[in-house]
Amino acid sequence: MTPRVREILSWYRGENPGVVTNLARLLNHGRLGGTGRMVILPVDQGFEHGPGRSFAVNPPAYNPFYHFELAIEAGLSAYAAPLGFLEAGAAEFAGELPLILKCNNHDLLHKEKDPIPAMTAGVDDALRLGCVAVGYTIYPGSDHRVGMYEQLRELVADARSAGLASVVWSYPRGADLSKEGETAIDVSAYAAQIAAQLGAHVIKVKLPSAHLELPEAKLVYEQNKVPIATAAERVRHVVQSAFDGRRIVIFSGGETKPDEAAILDEIRAIRDGGGFGSIIGRNSFQRKKPDAIKMLTDIMKIYGGEMK
Amino acid sequence: MTPRVREILSWYRGENPGVVTNLARLLNHGRLGGTGRMVILPVDQGFEHGPGRSFAVNPPAYNPFYHFELAIEAGLSAYAAPLGFLEAGAAEFAGELPLILKCNNHDLLHKEKDPIPAMTAGVDDALRLGCVAVGYTIYPGSDHRVGMYEQLRELVADARSAGLASVVWSYPRGADLSKEGETAIDVSAYAAQIAAQLGAHVIKVKLPSAHLELPEAKLVYEQNKVPIATAAERVRHVVQSAFDGRRIVIFSGGETKPDEAAILDEIRAIRDGGGFGSIIGRNSFQRKKPDAIKMLTDIMKIYGGEMK
Amino acid sequence: MTPRVREILSWYRGENPGVVTNLARLLNHGRLGGTGRMVILPVDQGFEHGPGRSFAVNPPAYNPFYHFELAIEAGLSAYAAPLGFLEAGAAEFAGELPLILKCNNHDLLHKEKDPIPAMTAGVDDALRLGCVAVGYTIYPGSDHRVGMYEQLRELVADARSAGLASVVWSYPRGADLSKEGETAIDVSAYAAQIAAQLGAHVIKVKLPSAHLELPEAKLVYEQNKVPIATAAERVRHVVQSAFDGRRIVIFSGGETKPDEAAILDEIRAIRDGGGFGSIIGRNSFQRKKPDAIKMLTDIMKIYGGEMK
Amino acid sequence: MTPRVREILSWYRGENPGVVTNLARLLNHGRLGGTGRMVILPVDQGFEHGPGRSFAVNPPAYNPFYHFELAIEAGLSAYAAPLGFLEAGAAEFAGELPLILKCNNHDLLHKEKDPIPAMTAGVDDALRLGCVAVGYTIYPGSDHRVGMYEQLRELVADARSAGLASVVWSYPRGADLSKEGETAIDVSAYAAQIAAQLGAHVIKVKLPSAHLELPEAKLVYEQNKVPIATAAERVRHVVQSAFDGRRIVIFSGGETKPDEAAILDEIRAIRDGGGFGSIIGRNSFQRKKPDAIKMLTDIMKIYGGEMK
Amino acid sequence: MTPRVREILSWYRGENPGVVTNLARLLNHGRLGGTGRMVILPVDQGFEHGPGRSFAVNPPAYNPFYHFELAIEAGLSAYAAPLGFLEAGAAEFAGELPLILKCNNHDLLHKEKDPIPAMTAGVDDALRLGCVAVGYTIYPGSDHRVGMYEQLRELVADARSAGLASVVWSYPRGADLSKEGETAIDVSAYAAQIAAQLGAHVIKVKLPSAHLELPEAKLVYEQNKVPIATAAERVRHVVQSAFDGRRIVIFSGGETKPDEAAILDEIRAIRDGGGFGSIIGRNSFQRKKPDAIKMLTDIMKIYGGEMK
Repeated sequence: MTPRVREILSWYRGENPGVVTNLARLLNHGRLGGTGRMVILPVDQGFEHGPGRSFAVNPPAYNPFYHFELAIEAGLSAYAAPLGFLEAGAAEFAGELPLILKCNNHDLLHKEKDPIPAMTAGVDDALRLGCVAVGYTIYPGSDHRVGMYEQLRELVADARSAGLASVVWSYPRGADLSKEGETAIDVSAYAAQIAAQLGAHVIKVKLPSAHLELPEAKLVYEQNKVPIATAAERVRHVVQSAFDGRRIVIFSGGETKPDEAAILDEIRAIRDGGGFGSIIGRNSFQRKKPDAIKMLTDIMKIYGGEMK
Repeated sequence: MTPRVREILSWYRGENPGVVTNLARLLNHGRLGGTGRMVILPVDQGFEHGPGRSFAVNPPAYNPFYHFELAIEAGLSAYAAPLGFLEAGAAEFAGELPLILKCNNHDLLHKEKDPIPAMTAGVDDALRLGCVAVGYTIYPGSDHRVGMYEQLRELVADARSAGLASVVWSYPRGADLSKEGETAIDVSAYAAQIAAQLGAHVIKVKLPSAHLELPEAKLVYEQNKVPIATAAERVRHVVQSAFDGRRIVIFSGGETKPDEAAILDEIRAIRDGGGFGSIIGRNSFQRKKPDAIKMLTDIMKIYGGEMK
Repeated sequence: MTPRVREILSWYRGENPGVVTNLARLLNHGRLGGTGRMVILPVDQGFEHGPGRSFAVNPPAYNPFYHFELAIEAGLSAYAAPLGFLEAGAAEFAGELPLILKCNNHDLLHKEKDPIPAMTAGVDDALRLGCVAVGYTIYPGSDHRVGMYEQLRELVADARSAGLASVVWSYPRGADLSKEGETAIDVSAYAAQIAAQLGAHVIKVKLPSAHLELPEAKLVYEQNKVPIATAAERVRHVVQSAFDGRRIVIFSGGETKPDEAAILDEIRAIRDGGGFGSIIGRNSFQRKKPDAIKMLTDIMKIYGGEMK
Repeated sequence: MTPRVREILSWYRGENPGVVTNLARLLNHGRLGGTGRMVILPVDQGFEHGPGRSFAVNPPAYNPFYHFELAIEAGLSAYAAPLGFLEAGAAEFAGELPLILKCNNHDLLHKEKDPIPAMTAGVDDALRLGCVAVGYTIYPGSDHRVGMYEQLRELVADARSAGLASVVWSYPRGADLSKEGETAIDVSAYAAQIAAQLGAHVIKVKLPSAHLELPEAKLVYEQNKVPIATAAERVRHVVQSAFDGRRIVIFSGGETKPDEAAILDEIRAIRDGGGFGSIIGRNSFQRKKPDAIKMLTDIMKIYGGEMK
Repeated sequence: MTPRVREILSWYRGENPGVVTNLARLLNHGRLGGTGRMVILPVDQGFEHGPGRSFAVNPPAYNPFYHFELAIEAGLSAYAAPLGFLEAGAAEFAGELPLILKCNNHDLLHKEKDPIPAMTAGVDDALRLGCVAVGYTIYPGSDHRVGMYEQLRELVADARSAGLASVVWSYPRGADLSKEGETAIDVSAYAAQIAAQLGAHVIKVKLPSAHLELPEAKLVYEQNKVPIATAAERVRHVVQSAFDGRRIVIFSGGETKPDEAAILDEIRAIRDGGGFGSIIGRNSFQRKKPDAIKMLTDIMKIYGGEMK
């Protein structure tokens, strides 16, 4: 157990040993094990965007085994996916890497401004599949957020009873938010805070922009000169907003970008801003496997200090 | 146990032995037993379309015994029906063929663009009636899909606890989808993926058309030149979309077609595209029994390799 | 046990002995006991239409004892009523005739096109009051039907666990149906089928008219020349639609008709069409008691074969 | 036990001894004990209308002890109040008079045509506070009545399990009813019937007017010449509508009337029409205590036959 | 145990010893221990208003430890916060001061006139974190108030079973109330009454204005000349409205005011009107720590009688 992992685990002293054990598994697995940073492979796009749109560019990715193998070969910290994808490989890859069961999902066959995901799995499933954590997406700003917060509350409580950790994707969305506002720095910081207050152990948000969405917040940010000009500063503010850095906050990669250099710059900003790592889906499995492994290795080198 | 059945069952290694046993019963029963293909008789049209519209053309079909007898005499893989129809014959035909209890239903006395079915039976009923599986219809695209996904999640979990398999009818429908879009290839593939991610063991979809409904998907299909020109190619894509063929996907016959030749052509496309079989309701029980048995035998010969 | 009762009970072979015992009690009680026909007194109009409108014409009927006495004196098969009316007399008349607890009710103080009844009693109540069955009204066609079907499903399951039979009133209603459509022959047959598929042991529908409501059904009825010209033919078609006569289907009397002869003609049509009997409320308790008993006796004579 | 109380209790023969015991406690307590009549003090106006509007005219009434003392000193049959008011004095006045816990409440800070009350207490609370009965208000006519009826059904069943009696306030209200219709004689009678059918042991309605609201009912009342011209006749009709007098029906006093004589005239009408008593809130606690006690004593004298 | 604390606890005689013990802990802790007054630090603004808007002015406050330390160093009566904030420090500061778990929360990323908070924690959480009480906000006047009242009812019952006290924030809000009406004296008094009737042990309201919002109430206040001209009179009326002073009512500080003198004047009004203390969030943690401690000390001196 490295001092940094011990330090991070100390922030969760109030949790039972089962939860802390599973957080330790996440922090100690793979190439970044022990550094206090993590890179997770999430593959829920088959459900969230459809299979053709997600996998046609790299057809081996239709196969659930592919993602287990990619995450294992690259030495990632964990693999996160919905029920079906985990069920289809959990027996074959049992014990090879930490799994996170994504317990709610949303699809695009019905349009709505205020997204409402469905609960598609639970703690019983996570336990029988050997997972270390459950995952759940909240959409702060959605007209349906109350139901999500309450569903999450139950999920986290059930997970705790089972000694599992909780990972929360916090994505502001809803009719009251502008498109730009969904990744505004004030809104992103707010989303991280909400997830932390709801009891998340690991929080995933999108990399924020310098836009300020909420008028009352804008005023305060400007009066107090909160530094948000650079990506690293914005990462720092989001991490600060999650209990002054006492919660693990990781950032998502977003849409596929062919240019690896641009991605690595984002990673450097996360590192410099004190972020705890990345969760990289499309940019991983929509590349050919060797390309993906190379890129993920570079990313982990940056986080691990082997590369600038 | 044939090697092909062993192979198919290996995809469900994560499931408990009860579920695998019941999947084996489905795969090993009737004329196609052991081939890895299946033909199922579903009779829920009395509920879904009304009794007169369903049975007046062949009045013996009003009698619940008729369908048990048809499925047994034809040597089909299983018979699927709602609660009442199974209750009315399960004692008389106990042990004669695998039964699938269709646990939700929808009727046409109330019109709506976004269908919402009712839960009409559950795992307790399936157990007391001697079934091998529960069946459930989801309507991805419906405004009510979240409730369906969550109801299905509970049903599948209950079924697993009881060692029963889960069969999911996945029919895209809803105000946001065009009529053509309901069977568009991108939408059908998406529907198969959703069912698989929700934990379905057997997935039933409609034979898709070459139409592409969702703009973002259309772009990806065209850029990546996904082959969808022939019915067999489309079947192949749907099967691929259900975990690269690691889930049993069967196709429905749709409306009654007097021309048996046209039906057999569809069967050949399903076979050639790697589909696992058919679920054929109206085209079975709306024919006179001898005609139905002849047609079903031809279909099974095509699937079984006895006929081109 | 007469052969006819044995035959009817054989249709329920899948049920547990408790349910079959209670069906036998219904079939063996009163003047029609053993004939396979039944006449039931239902008195829920105090709730459904209001007390003044129901009982002012025959004030002794305000008293809950009156209906027990009427049913017993006339030798009817059973008495069906809501919670309060049964509670008010179940102790005094315990064991004197089979009771059916009507478990949901609807009142007229709030108008709506899509009726939604309230669950007002359950199986625990039926057991403590000594009932042989629970009763429940569904309104196929109502926007709220899904809730009703699911509530009924639970009620029937609970009743089965307690060895009680289930009686379902199936009354099509809703904004999508024309007034005429509520008793159209295709809609009535559909209503009987839905009740049967939902697990009803005894089904009550209104006497249907020759109107055809649903365009797709109309086409099929006409193409297949389904005979629906006479009342007896329509009764026959409804009975056929309830599992080809393998479920007990009874018919309601409807509004009070001063002319007994017209009522008796309806009874003859039910008898000739193979109906299993009648459920006669307003035409019983809105007549003076001696008149009611005379009319009910005539009805039972027609069903029993003592009168043409 | 007086013959009259024995007679009243005999109407509840179907109930368990616990419920009958608590009804006996209500009938045997206070100045009217044994007469078969009762006067109850209800104080839920702090919740229903607000504290200032209810108590400013007589400030000692802000104190929860005041109402216990008023009811005890006046020798009333029982005291009914919401959770907080009973919790605040139940220990101090334990055993001194029968308590009824009002389990749902409605406030005026949100306007709506179809009132929807909140469940604010339950049977567990009633038991720990030493109550003899639970109270519940239904608003027949409200768009939300179904939820209320079902909530009441559960409450009454829970109360029965605990041997407690059930008191139902039945107040027609809703967008479909005219203001005048809320106290129309046909509607009031209907409200009493619904409460009785839902299993209420004691029913509280407002004193009805001679107005007839529902066209179908109006016709029947006129054709059958139902006597509703005087207040006593209307009381008689409401009592008749609650199972021909086999349920305890009491009447509310309504708004504060400075003129005691007018109140006493209403009491005489209730007495002459066969009503079982009164539930008098504002007219009690909005008078100075000595005035209230004098008036309540006069009322009880009228009911008890000591005064004309 | 001081006589004043004994007196206050006597108002809760109906409660179990566990609840009374925890109320005693609140009343006996910190600088005001034993005086019957209390000052509580509430920090839910990170969730309710967002982290930047709440903490940017005093960045140490991003850290959850900061608030525990502030409350302990100032000698406050208790610290109240949402789940995440308490989880993040409960182990480190275990046993150092009474904690109140705020069990519901509302955020500003979705706008609505009728606020609907989410249940974010419960009694199990309060127990595992060592709290003395649960907290819950109701919004009387909101279209969603019924759900809140019923959720609160369950929370209070669960808390009682666990021997925990219940603190209710009662904030009138909703489309039917004017902005001014939210703090109107009649509405504030009504809000306090509702909380008390729902079983709250400690009630928190905002300092009311002299505005009268509800026409019917306005009339009564004017006719009865209820004194509401000064802040102290209004405090007195609110306390009176919470069971004539037999419930602990505390007042909130509201928005940050740079001028400490203005704040102290409010405290004097609360003291003079018989209020039980204050709950001061933004005015505490948005000041630098030494300034906050100085101000809180002055406030407690006023309540404790050490300062005028």
